[in-house]
Amino acid sequence: MRLDFENSLISEEEIRDFDKKIIKAHSELHNDTTNINDFKGWVELEFDSAEIERIKTIADRIKSNSEILVVVGIGGSYLGARAVIEALSNNFEKSNVLYAGNNMNPDYMNDLLDYLNDKNFSINVISKSGTTTEPAIAFELLKELLIKKYGEEEAASRIYVTTDKEKGVLRKEANEKGYETFVIPDNIGGRYSVLTPVGLLPIAAAGIDIDRIISGAKAAMERYANVEDNECYKYAILRNILYKKGKKIEILASYEPKLQYFMEWWKQLFGESEGKDNKGIFPVSVGYTTDLHSLGQYVQEGERHLFETVIDIENPYRDIEFTIDENSHLNYLNGKTLNFANHSAMQGTITAHVEGGVPNIVIRVEKLDEYSIGELIYFFEKACAISGYLLKVNPFNQPGVEFYKKEMFRLLGKK
Amino acid sequence: MRLDFENSLISEEEIRDFDKKIIKAHSELHNDTTNINDFKGWVELEFDSAEIERIKTIADRIKSNSEILVVVGIGGSYLGARAVIEALSNNFEKSNVLYAGNNMNPDYMNDLLDYLNDKNFSINVISKSGTTTEPAIAFELLKELLIKKYGEEEAASRIYVTTDKEKGVLRKEANEKGYETFVIPDNIGGRYSVLTPVGLLPIAAAGIDIDRIISGAKAAMERYANVEDNECYKYAILRNILYKKGKKIEILASYEPKLQYFMEWWKQLFGESEGKDNKGIFPVSVGYTTDLHSLGQYVQEGERHLFETVIDIENPYRDIEFTIDENSHLNYLNGKTLNFANHSAMQGTITAHVEGGVPNIVIRVEKLDEYSIGELIYFFEKACAISGYLLKVNPFNQPGVEFYKKEMFRLLGKK
Repeated sequence: MRLDFENSLISEEEIRDFDKKIIKAHSELHNDTTNINDFKGWVELEFDSAEIERIKTIADRIKSNSEILVVVGIGGSYLGARAVIEALSNNFEKSNVLYAGNNMNPDYMNDLLDYLNDKNFSINVISKSGTTTEPAIAFELLKELLIKKYGEEEAASRIYVTTDKEKGVLRKEANEKGYETFVIPDNIGGRYSVLTPVGLLPIAAAGIDIDRIISGAKAAMERYANVEDNECYKYAILRNILYKKGKKIEILASYEPKLQYFMEWWKQLFGESEGKDNKGIFPVSVGYTTDLHSLGQYVQEGERHLFETVIDIENPYRDIEFTIDENSHLNYLNGKTLNFANHSAMQGTITAHVEGGVPNIVIRVEKLDEYSIGELIYFFEKACAISGYLLKVNPFNQPGVEFYKKEMFRLLGKK
Repeated sequence: MRLDFENSLISEEEIRDFDKKIIKAHSELHNDTTNINDFKGWVELEFDSAEIERIKTIADRIKSNSEILVVVGIGGSYLGARAVIEALSNNFEKSNVLYAGNNMNPDYMNDLLDYLNDKNFSINVISKSGTTTEPAIAFELLKELLIKKYGEEEAASRIYVTTDKEKGVLRKEANEKGYETFVIPDNIGGRYSVLTPVGLLPIAAAGIDIDRIISGAKAAMERYANVEDNECYKYAILRNILYKKGKKIEILASYEPKLQYFMEWWKQLFGESEGKDNKGIFPVSVGYTTDLHSLGQYVQEGERHLFETVIDIENPYRDIEFTIDENSHLNYLNGKTLNFANHSAMQGTITAHVEGGVPNIVIRVEKLDEYSIGELIYFFEKACAISGYLLKVNPFNQPGVEFYKKEMFRLLGKK
């Protein structure tokens, strides 16, 4: 992958002004990565090969005895898995992984229980504490159905728990009931956890090659390990410069519909890491060319408080070449391919938006596959942490998430 | 439906300051609604009952001979239909309506062609001019598959065209090949067209009662016809006041996952209507409580340039009452319902966000059904037009959408 910032409307000199700040941010991130309270476990993450093998074995078991795996989790506990699974699956064939515990809507839950009623399924419940309301409720209801279908014992064999290594109600229940368990490391926060069992088990259960994701992530880890020529750091610098220039919204854009949930993952990563102390770029995502016919008008001519970052997937798996009658109004496409048309839209849009005063950054990816997804994950994680340091916020906490919970618990009468 | 603005942080006096402006905006909208160039045909829309019956008859034909209806359109040509269909369908059972021509991604198109290969399907292509690149390409490729499967004659009977009443390449082709056609009225722009055949045919083909949608829309049309006590106008005023106070982002939030595409429709409606002349509120949507664990941190403590509008669906179709062991950590839910928990989250979130400096407007809807969707559509359409007038922009044009097309055509070598 490559970073292209020729349309960012930022000079090399402006970037060089960050030389000292970047060295400081780099050491801040790389020092004391072993300090548990710093949540930096993902920076130089080591992959335990025995654990990876166990994940694959369990994933095979799930695939063999379950038509559906229900991932029960909210926020960082499911978004990474969903991002990867949707990026690497067919656009129209249904995935074998569904999601629950990421909302409290009664019709959603009832529809899911109906849907699962005549299907063989398993559950992967993912929660560090086990007490987060949304997944805890969904787990109770799904467990009830599982027991009704299979009895206590087989139900227990269909429940996979990803939680704290020793603390919390889920760990306790897993120990009592003999559920298979996986550990959420203490020093990795939810939104940085997709390369741990949190993400890897559901991804593997969806039939995706997690070894290649890990290879991609490791390659990125090495490539962005040093300050020099670091495109990941450069992206962090660019967005901080743009923010200071009044660009308060970053639109992540892609011409690949499968990246919808990857962009949702990105929104959590950056929004939760930087949106604090009354600061931060507001992260938004769009799917183009779809949304050029929706938000395109605003991007072109609305308030000038935004910039765009485009994830360009250069090559599709299968292209389509046009053979068009010369009398057709589409004859200009004859002999060209759909990918060429899609990329002409992309290039045309970048030109148009930049002329309209919207700086553009492009992240070019040769192909959307396991390896490049692994690279993208690490690229954005590290860029986000560095970007947070440049903004002078703590990119690893999320104190604001507690406020609504406190009010909610008051209304629910929880002591 | 009711508008609740007690948490908008706006006084009655501030609203009264708009009395004169609102009278002006109201007459601007209601005068000359017959002038074609004004695109106000939706304001006092009359429904031709013979045409509605024809839509239902054709929808029945599609349902009886097709497992799938592919809606081919982009922007306003599909978003309204998708918004309604997803709002009123099961969360997990697949809909019989799929979408194409809303992007140019080769893998998306190839996956769709594969998926349709062994299925009976029909096409509803929706385009005023017929030359918009995305739907025109998708229509060519899907028509090719249709002819391969059924031969020229039956293929022609499976193509339904919604287009201009006399002009354009689609109208010409339809006349030549004898496709069944529906008319996009001249005086209704794409984003205001869901209550015309543009939206109604696919919605009816999805098995949804379009008469009740129309009833809801008509009720809203009557309710918001006059300046006095007009909650629709009040919503327009509130957002203009908030915008002037520096709230440049409006987050439309819902605790109902089925409203995801309704919120996409809303984003186009407001973004395309107001995002011009370097002005306009940037429209964003979130699904709560899901996104409280993603963007919630930012909303609570990030830059204070945003406000929220919540669509509150008060009653689900089916609720779930909790029976929880008193030793469980969830015992605080015992005897309560999931809908109560979801609404406690909603109320808690509003309180928390308002305390954090984010004004909240709530639109309360008793139940999500055909009737209320019809009401909501008209409510937002009219609020949007009035809001645009208050902002002093033309809410019915979208000049900026042409810029990317011009650049794209240059790259594609179109003369």
